[in-house]
Amino acid sequence: MDDCIFCKIAKKEILAEIVYEDAKYLAFLSIDPLSPGHVLVIPKDHYRWVWDVPNIGEYFSIVQKIAKAQQKAFLTEVVFSHIEGKEVSHAHIWVYPDIKTSGDKKDFAGNADKIRKSLI
Amino acid sequence: MDDCIFCKIAKKEILAEIVYEDAKYLAFLSIDPLSPGHVLVIPKDHYRWVWDVPNIGEYFSIVQKIAKAQQKAFLTEVVFSHIEGKEVSHAHIWVYPDIKTSGDKKDFAGNADKIRKSLI
Repeated sequence: MDDCIFCKIAKKEILAEIVYEDAKYLAFLSIDPLSPGHVLVIPKDHYRWVWDVPNIGEYFSIVQKIAKAQQKAFLTEVVFSHIEGKEVSHAHIWVYPDIKTSGDKKDFAGNADKIRKSLI
Repeated sequence: MDDCIFCKIAKKEILAEIVYEDAKYLAFLSIDPLSPGHVLVIPKDHYRWVWDVPNIGEYFSIVQKIAKAQQKAFLTEVVFSHIEGKEVSHAHIWVYPDIKTSGDKKDFAGNADKIRKSLI
């Protein structure tokens, strides 16, 4: 959709700190993080709600990959995920380490790097 | 696990208002609902975190089924899902209609019935 900020991020028309990408999904850091390494996972195609995404299991297996990388990167077993979606009308899933996790949540480059290295 | 409340619910040793069940997963109403028809989806086997559940895509496809049934049952497209898990040490996913959804959130029998009928 032309006026959708997440479609623009998916098309690289708006920059984001991307931590994971494949043909269908993109994961990038939230610009308003609740904890260090707070990630949003989106389908590249536009869907209004997470519940509209076909093959949701595939989508969620990406979320699990990110969560496991965050556990490793931020030395915590506690990783939260929230699906809401009223604020941006493109399906997105929040995945973020425990808000008690130590670190600078505004160190976007450093936190993204930690996640990318833990995904390997 | 012997002292796990969700294992006991899975084994039917503790009653719950069950809305969906298959060989591996169980979905039942929260006893402390945030909105009418607030559901918890658990794997029957004991895992500490949602991220530990193998084949998480299968797990999440059940969550999607419930979310779609809630949309239909409570006449809202807004269905939230939260994964946290500090309070009970057995993997569980919250799925619940918008907190603005009208209805009596304590009408467990009625709300469960609406979800079951919408799952068909």
